[in-house]
Amino acid sequence: MLIVMNHNASPDQIEAVKAQIVEIGFQPCPMPSDTRMAIGIVGNDGAVDPGPFQDLPGVASCIAVTSAYKQVSREWRAEDTVITLPNGTRIGGGELVVMAGPCSVESREQLLETAEHVARAGATVLRGGAFKPRSSPYAFQGLGEEGLKMMAEAREKYGLAIITEAIDHESLELVEQYADIIQLGARNMQNFALLRRAGRSPKPVMLKRGPSATIKEWLLAAEYILAEGNQQVILCERGIRSYDEATRNTLDVTAIPLVKRLSHLPVVADPSHGTGRRPLIAPMSRAAVAAGADGLIIEVHRNPDKAKSDGGQTLFPEQFTELMTGVRLVAEALGTPVQTNPFALQQA
Amino acid sequence: MLIVMNHNASPDQIEAVKAQIVEIGFQPCPMPSDTRMAIGIVGNDGAVDPGPFQDLPGVASCIAVTSAYKQVSREWRAEDTVITLPNGTRIGGGELVVMAGPCSVESREQLLETAEHVARAGATVLRGGAFKPRSSPYAFQGLGEEGLKMMAEAREKYGLAIITEAIDHESLELVEQYADIIQLGARNMQNFALLRRAGRSPKPVMLKRGPSATIKEWLLAAEYILAEGNQQVILCERGIRSYDEATRNTLDVTAIPLVKRLSHLPVVADPSHGTGRRPLIAPMSRAAVAAGADGLIIEVHRNPDKAKSDGGQTLFPEQFTELMTGVRLVAEALGTPVQTNPFALQQA
Amino acid sequence: MLIVMNHNASPDQIEAVKAQIVEIGFQPCPMPSDTRMAIGIVGNDGAVDPGPFQDLPGVASCIAVTSAYKQVSREWRAEDTVITLPNGTRIGGGELVVMAGPCSVESREQLLETAEHVARAGATVLRGGAFKPRSSPYAFQGLGEEGLKMMAEAREKYGLAIITEAIDHESLELVEQYADIIQLGARNMQNFALLRRAGRSPKPVMLKRGPSATIKEWLLAAEYILAEGNQQVILCERGIRSYDEATRNTLDVTAIPLVKRLSHLPVVADPSHGTGRRPLIAPMSRAAVAAGADGLIIEVHRNPDKAKSDGGQTLFPEQFTELMTGVRLVAEALGTPVQTNPFALQQA
Amino acid sequence: MLIVMNHNASPDQIEAVKAQIVEIGFQPCPMPSDTRMAIGIVGNDGAVDPGPFQDLPGVASCIAVTSAYKQVSREWRAEDTVITLPNGTRIGGGELVVMAGPCSVESREQLLETAEHVARAGATVLRGGAFKPRSSPYAFQGLGEEGLKMMAEAREKYGLAIITEAIDHESLELVEQYADIIQLGARNMQNFALLRRAGRSPKPVMLKRGPSATIKEWLLAAEYILAEGNQQVILCERGIRSYDEATRNTLDVTAIPLVKRLSHLPVVADPSHGTGRRPLIAPMSRAAVAAGADGLIIEVHRNPDKAKSDGGQTLFPEQFTELMTGVRLVAEALGTPVQTNPFALQQA
Repeated sequence: MLIVMNHNASPDQIEAVKAQIVEIGFQPCPMPSDTRMAIGIVGNDGAVDPGPFQDLPGVASCIAVTSAYKQVSREWRAEDTVITLPNGTRIGGGELVVMAGPCSVESREQLLETAEHVARAGATVLRGGAFKPRSSPYAFQGLGEEGLKMMAEAREKYGLAIITEAIDHESLELVEQYADIIQLGARNMQNFALLRRAGRSPKPVMLKRGPSATIKEWLLAAEYILAEGNQQVILCERGIRSYDEATRNTLDVTAIPLVKRLSHLPVVADPSHGTGRRPLIAPMSRAAVAAGADGLIIEVHRNPDKAKSDGGQTLFPEQFTELMTGVRLVAEALGTPVQTNPFALQQA
Repeated sequence: MLIVMNHNASPDQIEAVKAQIVEIGFQPCPMPSDTRMAIGIVGNDGAVDPGPFQDLPGVASCIAVTSAYKQVSREWRAEDTVITLPNGTRIGGGELVVMAGPCSVESREQLLETAEHVARAGATVLRGGAFKPRSSPYAFQGLGEEGLKMMAEAREKYGLAIITEAIDHESLELVEQYADIIQLGARNMQNFALLRRAGRSPKPVMLKRGPSATIKEWLLAAEYILAEGNQQVILCERGIRSYDEATRNTLDVTAIPLVKRLSHLPVVADPSHGTGRRPLIAPMSRAAVAAGADGLIIEVHRNPDKAKSDGGQTLFPEQFTELMTGVRLVAEALGTPVQTNPFALQQA
Repeated sequence: MLIVMNHNASPDQIEAVKAQIVEIGFQPCPMPSDTRMAIGIVGNDGAVDPGPFQDLPGVASCIAVTSAYKQVSREWRAEDTVITLPNGTRIGGGELVVMAGPCSVESREQLLETAEHVARAGATVLRGGAFKPRSSPYAFQGLGEEGLKMMAEAREKYGLAIITEAIDHESLELVEQYADIIQLGARNMQNFALLRRAGRSPKPVMLKRGPSATIKEWLLAAEYILAEGNQQVILCERGIRSYDEATRNTLDVTAIPLVKRLSHLPVVADPSHGTGRRPLIAPMSRAAVAAGADGLIIEVHRNPDKAKSDGGQTLFPEQFTELMTGVRLVAEALGTPVQTNPFALQQA
Repeated sequence: MLIVMNHNASPDQIEAVKAQIVEIGFQPCPMPSDTRMAIGIVGNDGAVDPGPFQDLPGVASCIAVTSAYKQVSREWRAEDTVITLPNGTRIGGGELVVMAGPCSVESREQLLETAEHVARAGATVLRGGAFKPRSSPYAFQGLGEEGLKMMAEAREKYGLAIITEAIDHESLELVEQYADIIQLGARNMQNFALLRRAGRSPKPVMLKRGPSATIKEWLLAAEYILAEGNQQVILCERGIRSYDEATRNTLDVTAIPLVKRLSHLPVVADPSHGTGRRPLIAPMSRAAVAAGADGLIIEVHRNPDKAKSDGGQTLFPEQFTELMTGVRLVAEALGTPVQTNPFALQQA
């Protein structure tokens, strides 16, 4: 931390700040300038609380210096983390991965039909919610373990890996048995008990950014998972909250190249939640890929207008096929291979 | 929901929208104007998904009409909810309640000393965290059940009620044994599994507003608790996230009179988290009371500069006494009695 | 500025940063810690651009230290600025000033009737817009100089001072002839040409905070006026933009005590624009006074439902009288005298 | 507007709302549902003020329906607006236009050198500020007309068109004499006097989005220009303000495809201001193109580390050449031709 003094701070006020630094166990490092004095704190291992300083006489401001996350940072580990799934899909290794499927698993037929379609179109991971966190207690809450079994069946049939959300300890126990990737949702980004539990799972975890989380808070939340021993973490940008209600969220595309610089973890974009509007999903998928995303996660339903949740941001199957065409053009123009589904190849 | 058509929408496009409304089981209610057609949906019990409509040809926009929360609303119940605690404190009944204490319980001495001070100064509820949700996995995480026992001892000694945070199912089991009010924190506002569990507790629950939660989302989160049967819910405004880092959060004082109009539940303000800056806590406490808050929750520590968390927003004991003086002046000027602690009266 | 290096930055990288500091004409001030090196820049008079540093190899971040505003700060001038108007009203001198009147001047009768009412109720400054900045080009744009003449007539009749908005150079020429205070609106907060022109006016200026301005940007905008020689500046908090549309804006009440600490200029609150909702104006007026505001500015109209602008946030005359009662109770409880209008006293 | 009643609103309350609608000159259109009554307003030409309704007894909420902008909308004009500049550059016609140059014109050599470089790399429009709006009154404010003359010289030499900012009436008079496009900056987006003046200019105008403007406010600001008769308007997305300071602004890439749907005007992206960080400019340029932008505007300087403004977000010449390569790959993959500079072709 750096403590900046007022330009007219007295020598006594400066001494009092130094004494307070010594008092809490660190060393003061004075840094005079023409207009004012600043005093650094050295000897600390982590962040220092500005509390004892910010309202001392003569203090103008306190500035944090040490970054709080460690294991998730590029400083800690320079090379990209690559996560390999049972069906051969590799996330973070320079290829583009597409995850797709319905918002919620609603029935065996609905899921299988959608899964077959997205596999043929080139997705290698199937998404689908069996446990749904909903703003209203009166909304559809998901099929639970039945839904997970349907996901597993779709996996077998279509050569996919599966990703699905866990919303608490109980659902996480089940999800880690069935899924290839455990999804932690935006509203649970700072549910630290759940992050810790996911950190003790053998399965990869995809951590969505909270709707008003800073980049730093998001990386610190991932740090909770790594700190428990699970290194297989995927970050997912899904839109942040802004003042404009023209879209459901504001997809923070810039977070993609920024986080790729700060961290070695793979970053996936979710333009379905990020925009909330069907016609914006394909252009924003192309944008995310052009910005360097390692993957996309897209909501697709055989009949979005009858979906039990998120219908307005869910693509029709043929729209998803079209989206894949555009995404492939961009990815390949930039030299990024798009992962292919062995099932789709076999059918072709 | 109301579907607004473009001014030049064709009769066929209008018919298609009507047909889609019938298709999903409701009735269209056309509402022509000079410049364009709008079509209402009637017959629905809850909110209708705009998905099937918003990108139909000729549709300009879809507007939600039905409010999603029910039991928390003034429409549902006109009279104020009043919550009575074992020590006689009443929250929501037109008197002002002050809750105070350290951010974290750190030791028996620290807690008892602070508790005695806040009781003498007029607080009737003791706050103190035994389970701490922290942004960083490397920060102090609380004393757990030991801390709860210290809280219980302080309650006996100083005639206080106690409030403390639960962060997951395990800690909630413990907290509901010891505490008079279970606190659910801002980051858990949409941890729906935890909300449901709290809804099955016999103890009152104080639900903090999430840092980027809308008023509607906050009330819907409370609805989760009421929907499970627990009617004793207190809402706590603790500051929202804005673009300006001059303060830790932006205390949304306006939310106090607004929520009092929308809901029958009591509303408490937290100017410690709401500002994050010691010198701003007293003026903002007065402001919250002047705006109609049913209570305040304030961080106080016998020595804030040595606090293990939130020191910079924690008051010294004498600052808290001073704050109480200002708050009393405002409350009494507006005809709001300030609750008094029997212990303090007895000592006086 | 402080340049923080990565924990594993090489000595060469550190030397390169130092060399760059020398290159731009300043001195490097190294500040080692156990985990990393930080390098301060000294010798600079104002803010240093982080550009040449932030993407140098080994640099983790660049942190601004010097505050950019000078004359508006408490460091520069410790005692409160007090502004005296021709009718004896003093703003910033420890008393509470109330400004009230219609959003727009619509007719002589409307203005005089409203002016008489607010004067009797205790306002000492009459507000009213003759030049209206409107989001839509098709909305009512004000009466112009005719409106100013009506304001001047109301001033004579009811012992008021008058405040009205200037929106460009032309309107400012007129406004400064007629008004006692020139108002600069939120959308013009960074219209630097207009700020400069107002800085050369002999009349006091009230500068509204921009809807997404930081405290720092607001103070820098005021600095433009002081830098041209006009020291009579009043700051007006009128609500900031947040993600929640439950209110028109979010009145940042905390800005009041915060700005009073950072600056010597008086601060006025505008709960009409700050909330946009009639029933919230009185409680938020009380809150602003309890937080330490030097004044209030309130929209009142003899018949708000027929107002040409802002009707939904405008009080009926009797609601304003009631508001004054509540505000007086809070102000007097806190020892703040409320300014009185000689006309009202004379009538009483 | 639609007025939604409480579910238990009485028939009298409903009648009172209807009567109020008639009172202000429109017709009520009742729209009953199972749970509550809603009442539409018909017969109005523009937006209706919710003021007279929102706090009537029994009213739950008032919902705006009519969109306020007209001439800028796709409803008004279905085909894309295409703007042709003297050097043959066409904006909005399905090709990609790149504008580039220094933040500020600092000297003849600096400008010509940079202009030559960006022309060779493929830019067809030269940007450069001669009048600079700066947050601080003590920062460099631009060379004024001298700068414009240097821009004109660069235009002749390198076959470019030129774009430069006007900040008030005086500078606009000059800018429209010299420039091919008049730029109106983000802080002036709601400087309505300036918008009107630009609406009477024969030159095309590029209107930057305000840092906290909604899409609707931005389009309404453009409407001011069209309403005065100038149809040649280009919209420029330059980043919005969010709660995260990790980047200078949050480039709202989604605004690009969204505004292309709502309006017929061309949309350009500014990733320099949109990110504020040099290494993020190239990936975000590619993202904007992939999302459908009609153009880019990029800050380039022969030596950014010595730039008088915005150095940290300004590219070195060779970085700009690299950016063009990536942008061309994406544009061409999507079938969008990139405009070419005749000078560059001639040199090749």
